[in-house]
Amino acid sequence: MLPDPLLHLIELLARLPGVGEKTAQRFALHLVAERSGTARALGDALSLLGDRVKSCQRCGNIAEVDDTGGAVCLVCRDSRRDTSLLCIVAKVQDLLAIERSGAMRGRYFVLGRLLSPLDGIGPDELPLERLFVRLGEDGVREVIVATPPSVDGEATALLLARELTNRGVAVSRIASGVPHGGDLEFADQITLGRAIEGRRALESR
Amino acid sequence: MLPDPLLHLIELLARLPGVGEKTAQRFALHLVAERSGTARALGDALSLLGDRVKSCQRCGNIAEVDDTGGAVCLVCRDSRRDTSLLCIVAKVQDLLAIERSGAMRGRYFVLGRLLSPLDGIGPDELPLERLFVRLGEDGVREVIVATPPSVDGEATALLLARELTNRGVAVSRIASGVPHGGDLEFADQITLGRAIEGRRALESR
Repeated sequence: MLPDPLLHLIELLARLPGVGEKTAQRFALHLVAERSGTARALGDALSLLGDRVKSCQRCGNIAEVDDTGGAVCLVCRDSRRDTSLLCIVAKVQDLLAIERSGAMRGRYFVLGRLLSPLDGIGPDELPLERLFVRLGEDGVREVIVATPPSVDGEATALLLARELTNRGVAVSRIASGVPHGGDLEFADQITLGRAIEGRRALESR
Repeated sequence: MLPDPLLHLIELLARLPGVGEKTAQRFALHLVAERSGTARALGDALSLLGDRVKSCQRCGNIAEVDDTGGAVCLVCRDSRRDTSLLCIVAKVQDLLAIERSGAMRGRYFVLGRLLSPLDGIGPDELPLERLFVRLGEDGVREVIVATPPSVDGEATALLLARELTNRGVAVSRIASGVPHGGDLEFADQITLGRAIEGRRALESR
């Protein structure tokens, strides 16, 4: 029913995360009908993307390609950051979320994946060698492991703790518990268990 | 935090229907991280889109541009269709849905919009002149109005009924009622009211 160029476009749009055939068709028909030139502008932006944006060669964050063809992200360029403090995250989105919180004054290292025995991802599939090089270069003394509080995230955190403690680095894990504004009544039992386990002394002075 | 080319891409992706800033960012980061070249392929497909796909000059359906620069859709090209029967729909998606049902043996006319006094869309904003030309060219004798059973859709259907009956064309409206497989218990009262109002005689023979 639809012409081939449109079917091809729908197939490509359906590769976006969380986008199925039906949503992709909706996007494609919108782009055809719409007259302000979004299709062409988007086409140009996407065609240039690979040449202009890459993973930061130091931490794996998103970075703009510079004149030499290299790519160092804004965080790694920022000289006001504490280079002795490194935060390890699973993916770029997590890095961005932590940056929005404004709570991190050090730099980052993006793993890109987590240990996942079920998916056949073992320690050898993690970029540990690159991480160790980074630790040495920056003189990192403290690492905050900010992998997600999931089975894979915890397993990865334990592996990192072992490897990093052996290298004389102080390792900590982000807290897990009832989120700010969350209702205890609706928190799941694992979250509540962690909130109680990770309780902190209240000081009255 | 993100480099400019990526922010520009996110802004364009957020123009897609139902896509907000956060989803657009998710799409963009996926396209940067992904290594199979989807970004470039999508860029090429979008850049070509405007030259290769247009609205059908006869009915408003999606059509591939031919060698002469014109665009006539597959339905309008299909000589097996009953040209005396025309189905009027609000948008291309509705046409595609009806085609999937296989219940329409005539052709289509896509209005592109509905009467909507609140949005300032009156009869003059509907492509009625183009519709009348189409009726004459094809020798249409029967029109099925398949605008949606909403306030705007019903208002548009009434306007079309008046205009078309004046021109000696038989006009019908698609049925509205409890959908196939639907539960009466959970149908809203307007749908139930319409289902009863639009009841049909059961013949036992």
